[in-house]
Amino acid sequence: MKRTYIKDIVPGTPCTVSGFIENLRNKRTMAFLVVRDVTGKLQLTVEKEKAPELAAIVDTLTLESVITVTGTVIENEYVKLGGREMIPESITVESHAEALPLGPDANIDTRLDYRWIDLRTEKNLLMFRVQTCFVGAMRQYLLENNFSEIHTPKLIGAASESGADVFELKYFDRKAYLAQSPQFYKQMAMAAGFERIFESGPVFRAEKSFTNKHTTEFTGFDLEFSYITSFEDVMQMEEDLLTYALSRVKQEYGEKIEELFGLPVIVPEKPFPRMKLADVYAELRERYGYECPASEMGDLTTDAERLTARLAKEKFGHEFLFITDYSAEKRAFYHMRDENGVPQGYDLIWRGVEITTGAQREHRYEILKKQAEEKGLGEDVRFYLEFFRYGCPPHGGFGLGVDRLTMLLTGLPIKDAMFLFRGPNRLNP
Amino acid sequence: MKRTYIKDIVPGTPCTVSGFIENLRNKRTMAFLVVRDVTGKLQLTVEKEKAPELAAIVDTLTLESVITVTGTVIENEYVKLGGREMIPESITVESHAEALPLGPDANIDTRLDYRWIDLRTEKNLLMFRVQTCFVGAMRQYLLENNFSEIHTPKLIGAASESGADVFELKYFDRKAYLAQSPQFYKQMAMAAGFERIFESGPVFRAEKSFTNKHTTEFTGFDLEFSYITSFEDVMQMEEDLLTYALSRVKQEYGEKIEELFGLPVIVPEKPFPRMKLADVYAELRERYGYECPASEMGDLTTDAERLTARLAKEKFGHEFLFITDYSAEKRAFYHMRDENGVPQGYDLIWRGVEITTGAQREHRYEILKKQAEEKGLGEDVRFYLEFFRYGCPPHGGFGLGVDRLTMLLTGLPIKDAMFLFRGPNRLNP
Repeated sequence: MKRTYIKDIVPGTPCTVSGFIENLRNKRTMAFLVVRDVTGKLQLTVEKEKAPELAAIVDTLTLESVITVTGTVIENEYVKLGGREMIPESITVESHAEALPLGPDANIDTRLDYRWIDLRTEKNLLMFRVQTCFVGAMRQYLLENNFSEIHTPKLIGAASESGADVFELKYFDRKAYLAQSPQFYKQMAMAAGFERIFESGPVFRAEKSFTNKHTTEFTGFDLEFSYITSFEDVMQMEEDLLTYALSRVKQEYGEKIEELFGLPVIVPEKPFPRMKLADVYAELRERYGYECPASEMGDLTTDAERLTARLAKEKFGHEFLFITDYSAEKRAFYHMRDENGVPQGYDLIWRGVEITTGAQREHRYEILKKQAEEKGLGEDVRFYLEFFRYGCPPHGGFGLGVDRLTMLLTGLPIKDAMFLFRGPNRLNP
Repeated sequence: MKRTYIKDIVPGTPCTVSGFIENLRNKRTMAFLVVRDVTGKLQLTVEKEKAPELAAIVDTLTLESVITVTGTVIENEYVKLGGREMIPESITVESHAEALPLGPDANIDTRLDYRWIDLRTEKNLLMFRVQTCFVGAMRQYLLENNFSEIHTPKLIGAASESGADVFELKYFDRKAYLAQSPQFYKQMAMAAGFERIFESGPVFRAEKSFTNKHTTEFTGFDLEFSYITSFEDVMQMEEDLLTYALSRVKQEYGEKIEELFGLPVIVPEKPFPRMKLADVYAELRERYGYECPASEMGDLTTDAERLTARLAKEKFGHEFLFITDYSAEKRAFYHMRDENGVPQGYDLIWRGVEITTGAQREHRYEILKKQAEEKGLGEDVRFYLEFFRYGCPPHGGFGLGVDRLTMLLTGLPIKDAMFLFRGPNRLNP
């Protein structure tokens, strides 16, 4: 018989259900099992005297074994689980589980060692449904707005933006590096006349960071588009994209996220508030007494980043905040600068965490080359500078971290918000 | 003025257009330019005496420079390009192009060196639109069929399936490897109870192959799903997926593909034909006199693979062919085998090229462990075998190469069908 999802069971009609055994009480005359599939849970009730062959199977079962059961579901007001239970006619053991190597109070390292068991919760299943919905909605929005999807190489011949924090590998008789972002190749697509592109794919950072939000490999969602007239166009695109995706997430999973993670999904109002970095510091000092060391005023400090959640909420009633006018010294050489040398880009902060850097890019070869040289970048970016010598439209774009978005939607630390976390000390399973 | 796509221009109404200069004839009294955007081409006509300031700008222009032009488009039956031309009122030079470093007859290596210029053709733009459509349609189909998207790590701690053909890298104080496929982690998601997942992402192969279809990095599209009863379920899923995606491609781009690439898009009939490997060899011998060396009968040889295009067409009137019953010796240890030791999997051939390997997987720990040991795999797959000790549903899946699909849809060799090809001697740009 074809398998039925637990949520689709019609009481009174015979059906077949498959799933993991979540609970097992094997008593003298009765056995009660709870089986779990991706849609829900169901109690199985075996009267052992009436069904000795099933009783024999039940005696071999263990928690988290996988079974397929056929029977009829009846309503029974004494059953806690939705007031119904299945009286099985047959039970097939698909997979026998050994005694679990971790309990519900295992620490994070043990949980990551056995991540595939750790993932078997309603919360974790929901988390990846939500991520799927979020990313799917972003792709849909972009496809409807004339973007093409590209896949840029992760194996690159030069050490990318700076040479620091980059993984090096043996590539036949030479060295290669892992791309720290698709930045250079997104821009290559602009020089190729693609006009609007996006990419989702892995991004590699050889950073020895041990925080709640850093990882050595994560999923980036990047886009780039041509014929913009200022970085305001880029911020608008990002507002539109995130608002669209968050609406979809709220609509499909808003209640469930609130129930399981205790966090509301808030569809942001447009336009998102915008502040210059210097004004952010002035307000943080005035409102919360935060004093930024003078040497760090050109960039947003980690403490200030956290405080902007409160600022955005109290000043604008908003969860998002665009911060602009960083110091050129702290920004990538490829950000366009205005006549006063101010980078034409921004960071976007959501719930006190930076989720994006975006900018209009410098597309004029001579200026770009000069900006690279000022940062001491030579040979490593030479291949990239070539993209701008033979015609390239003005353009801009941004990149989002998919795992950070998931982390912020669920309120979980990064290790819990990824399918499999990677850090300096974590490369398995 | 907001930019208008060339395809959306309404003659008689002033508009602004941006694009690359594809053609430039600067005569004594008149200048004719052709500007190209992502939607089409437009002639600009400058009467130099009437517009001396525009004439001065035109004198500075070069082929492939990027300009923004404002003016009114008029109909003119003498103009070849759609019978219309723009009389510009203003021209802004967005980016000045140097003399192009390659001509239209450049060889493939030069073209790849300057890939961003090489990509600036209607064919190449179309190719990535088509790929976007194909992959987007596959994702949509899967989302509608309860699949979630996951992102599995590309940095792994053990040398994956065999240790051969794997890239090794320095990971802080130890070694790491680049994933040759998401296979093990897709299956981990099954052990985690995700039931149905897909992933699109890069796949790395350290193969020193120099063919028209191999590359060291490509985009994989992989899926895996639980509670199947045989690999027939996997083949059906793949038929449904490909038929859906090809219908969409045909509908949106079929005519354009036929026009530019000379290839029809054929939406396949279901079910796709299925043949056992031994029967394929028997028919190839009988029909085309192909004799396979006895030592290679357990797998499909490259010559036989090519010939199956003809076989599928002449025997079944079909472009696709599922081939089953390979020898266990030639198949991965994780393919389930029947009681006679026959692997429960298949290859799918399209137009004479293998595009997929699929199978029901062995989910029973003891049998899987034995099959790994028989292949001499020990330490490297130990982490993977753990996934099956604590309960795992029966499952199966397959993987597709996105670039190979694109190659077959367009009839181009792999180097031309990727955004940026990577091979043993090719790591730039």
